[in-house]
Amino acid sequence: MTAITELAAALAPGKILTDPDVTDSYARDRTFLEPGKPLAVVLAETRDDVVAVMRWATRHRVPVVPRGAGTGLAGGATSVDGGVVLALHKMTAIRELSPADEIAVVEPGVITADLDRAAREHGLMYAPDPSSYEISTIGGNLATNAGGLRCVKYGVTRDSALGLEVVLADGRVIDTGRRTVKGVTGYDLTGLFIGSEGTLGVITAATVRLRRAPASYPATIAAEFTSLRDAAAAVSAIIAAGCQPSLLEMLDRTTLEAVEAWRSIGLEPATKAMLIGQADSADADAVSARMVELCEANGASFVAASSSPEEAQELIWVRRMAYQAKEKLGKCLVEDVCVPRSALPFMIEKIEAIAARHDALIATVAHAGDGNLHPVFIFDHALPEPPPNVWAAADEVFREALAMGGTLTGEHGVGLLKRRWLALETGPVTEELHHGIKGLFDPLGILNPGKAI
Amino acid sequence: MTAITELAAALAPGKILTDPDVTDSYARDRTFLEPGKPLAVVLAETRDDVVAVMRWATRHRVPVVPRGAGTGLAGGATSVDGGVVLALHKMTAIRELSPADEIAVVEPGVITADLDRAAREHGLMYAPDPSSYEISTIGGNLATNAGGLRCVKYGVTRDSALGLEVVLADGRVIDTGRRTVKGVTGYDLTGLFIGSEGTLGVITAATVRLRRAPASYPATIAAEFTSLRDAAAAVSAIIAAGCQPSLLEMLDRTTLEAVEAWRSIGLEPATKAMLIGQADSADADAVSARMVELCEANGASFVAASSSPEEAQELIWVRRMAYQAKEKLGKCLVEDVCVPRSALPFMIEKIEAIAARHDALIATVAHAGDGNLHPVFIFDHALPEPPPNVWAAADEVFREALAMGGTLTGEHGVGLLKRRWLALETGPVTEELHHGIKGLFDPLGILNPGKAI
Repeated sequence: MTAITELAAALAPGKILTDPDVTDSYARDRTFLEPGKPLAVVLAETRDDVVAVMRWATRHRVPVVPRGAGTGLAGGATSVDGGVVLALHKMTAIRELSPADEIAVVEPGVITADLDRAAREHGLMYAPDPSSYEISTIGGNLATNAGGLRCVKYGVTRDSALGLEVVLADGRVIDTGRRTVKGVTGYDLTGLFIGSEGTLGVITAATVRLRRAPASYPATIAAEFTSLRDAAAAVSAIIAAGCQPSLLEMLDRTTLEAVEAWRSIGLEPATKAMLIGQADSADADAVSARMVELCEANGASFVAASSSPEEAQELIWVRRMAYQAKEKLGKCLVEDVCVPRSALPFMIEKIEAIAARHDALIATVAHAGDGNLHPVFIFDHALPEPPPNVWAAADEVFREALAMGGTLTGEHGVGLLKRRWLALETGPVTEELHHGIKGLFDPLGILNPGKAI
Repeated sequence: MTAITELAAALAPGKILTDPDVTDSYARDRTFLEPGKPLAVVLAETRDDVVAVMRWATRHRVPVVPRGAGTGLAGGATSVDGGVVLALHKMTAIRELSPADEIAVVEPGVITADLDRAAREHGLMYAPDPSSYEISTIGGNLATNAGGLRCVKYGVTRDSALGLEVVLADGRVIDTGRRTVKGVTGYDLTGLFIGSEGTLGVITAATVRLRRAPASYPATIAAEFTSLRDAAAAVSAIIAAGCQPSLLEMLDRTTLEAVEAWRSIGLEPATKAMLIGQADSADADAVSARMVELCEANGASFVAASSSPEEAQELIWVRRMAYQAKEKLGKCLVEDVCVPRSALPFMIEKIEAIAARHDALIATVAHAGDGNLHPVFIFDHALPEPPPNVWAAADEVFREALAMGGTLTGEHGVGLLKRRWLALETGPVTEELHHGIKGLFDPLGILNPGKAI
């Protein structure tokens, strides 16, 4: 019996795919990276399916690449040659939703926005909202410790995760963390698995924290600026004034042009940046008015504000559409540096200078309240991967971010794309510890090999 | 040269204490536990002192017990026979405080409340406030992942820590985490060190997140109830109404009697429980009024509210004094179970029943909004340790908490006191992973041996 026949025998019929035409679509994430050729794709429906795969993989020393919806932007879920893709998108049960304890227990294939909607039926919300939240899964969010637009107020995925059910490399199952909002029994394995990009275990359920949903749709403002520096100054002023926005996003001119090219938005020739802010606190209207004032005081050329959901959604539509608009212009290398908040304007200016110097098209959006920037390097659709000038520009962006006390990745993960810069941030002793931890959890090196560390 | 002479030679004069009468006071925490006899106490003043101690300890295989202010309640910092106590309370520098980035870089000996006061000079706050915050250190808070009264709104110590400087068992130094509010480069070593009670490394600095301080002193309420269940129902109603208190504490009759016995507070004979709540949001007065309403609707026999700092501090004084009052009555075994919020009233009733069945004096305060209870078992001053009936009662409390989906410790740590129940919560596979991690970071087993895991 071949290894694959043995795997098929361990699973119910229909759960294993081996036709290369079919498996290819499960081999990729949202990057340009050309994946390895998987032996098979397993469509897991239960924890036991995952256990069966990991036991089999340990027996045969076959690499396993866990996969959510494939919306990753760093190559964390691209398949490897001769490996199995362990697709978890069919594990979509919300096993429990307790309004009294404000928690839910969910499987990894649940779409993030679906969990949020389920919570809202009880006056609660699931706070983490990566831009991909309508198409990405909780499992993928946990694997990369995804952030999102609301995390300026509510924190990243880690901040909403209390405990995990994890299948280890050898198929044993553990529960980490707890159902309570506090707890310090034992080492923080929950935190260790979150953001580890499937290299330490396969998450088959998560106990997540829900929060009381705001009473109404957030008050929303959008402001245009004729200089990036003015927009950045407005951000600093908003934070310094203690506004506590629930969303604070900045878009540069190149991003706005990409949106304009796709769907005309009447972009003014002088506009260099747009700032979008929301507030969802009890005094949201007052906060919104204060944000408008601060934008005007910092030279905004145009400011709009609304607390009607329809108008507000129109104001943030440009932000939600930004990535799709860029993908129309070319292939995208999406980066994700994060700098201390006060360094944001300097980082934006560095990116502009780097783009000019390398003749690269870089369109930047930023979760401005967090100092997290997404410079998107757009290159020719016809090219298989970024040309040398784009890589050179990306290299400079990483080095500048680190020099400012920043990090390579705020919320997308290291995956494959950022591994070559990893040592610049972590250093040799930390790398040794990372590999020690990897060896402890995955002694055969079969869990998503070559990623994250 | 003896090992101790060699250690003394590696440090500046006056940094090493060996007189048993002096070292004894550094060998204890705040529990009744009789510590082992240390060889010496090192009063570290710099990171290099810590490096010197760990290099020496590795060379000679001597156990090292890191120590903050010794305010621990689980035996995490009690010394071991033949070991060195590495006292960090003299490392008190606030290396940096950046209002623009809302972060501070602090050494482990900084008193928690001192950091908060330093932040408030800039309109910011350091949120974590364990009851001991006027006497405990940031290093100790990190070692136990301390919670506090405000953590119902602002989270525990982990939620305010961005990065650490850590001296490893062999004296090598690493920086974990980052200065940015988000970041996913590499495994979450920051989270791994936090709550590990000095068993994986010695924290010599932390980059912590500061938050915008509320504009005014929190609006405060105190309510008395003639039944614990009514008080618990008021808690549930306050949470369900979305009040988002910044503090929500409950005290039982036994606790109130301890305070009454120490400093007369005019305790009514019928009062069975007190609830203390605060709100610090922009609409704090409205939230406070709503909390008053909900207490009254749930049968409060008396309710007071105030937003004047003096009056408010008087209202919460009873809570802040609770532990000191109990220590007047006897030696204390302080427990720290945490249950899902909805289980709080059931847990309180179980504790009462357990106290009665075992004829044990148990005074309970609870961080009610978090489901975190501190049943304090009070026993005779003359006894060296809790008598069998107290241990039997504590055992039942732990088992009940776990049966309700809770945890052994919400914020104090496992230390020595809770190790015998650890396996009930974690299970054998997780224990194996804990010991694997311990072996990776501390292969000689010299860092705070016998604690936490």
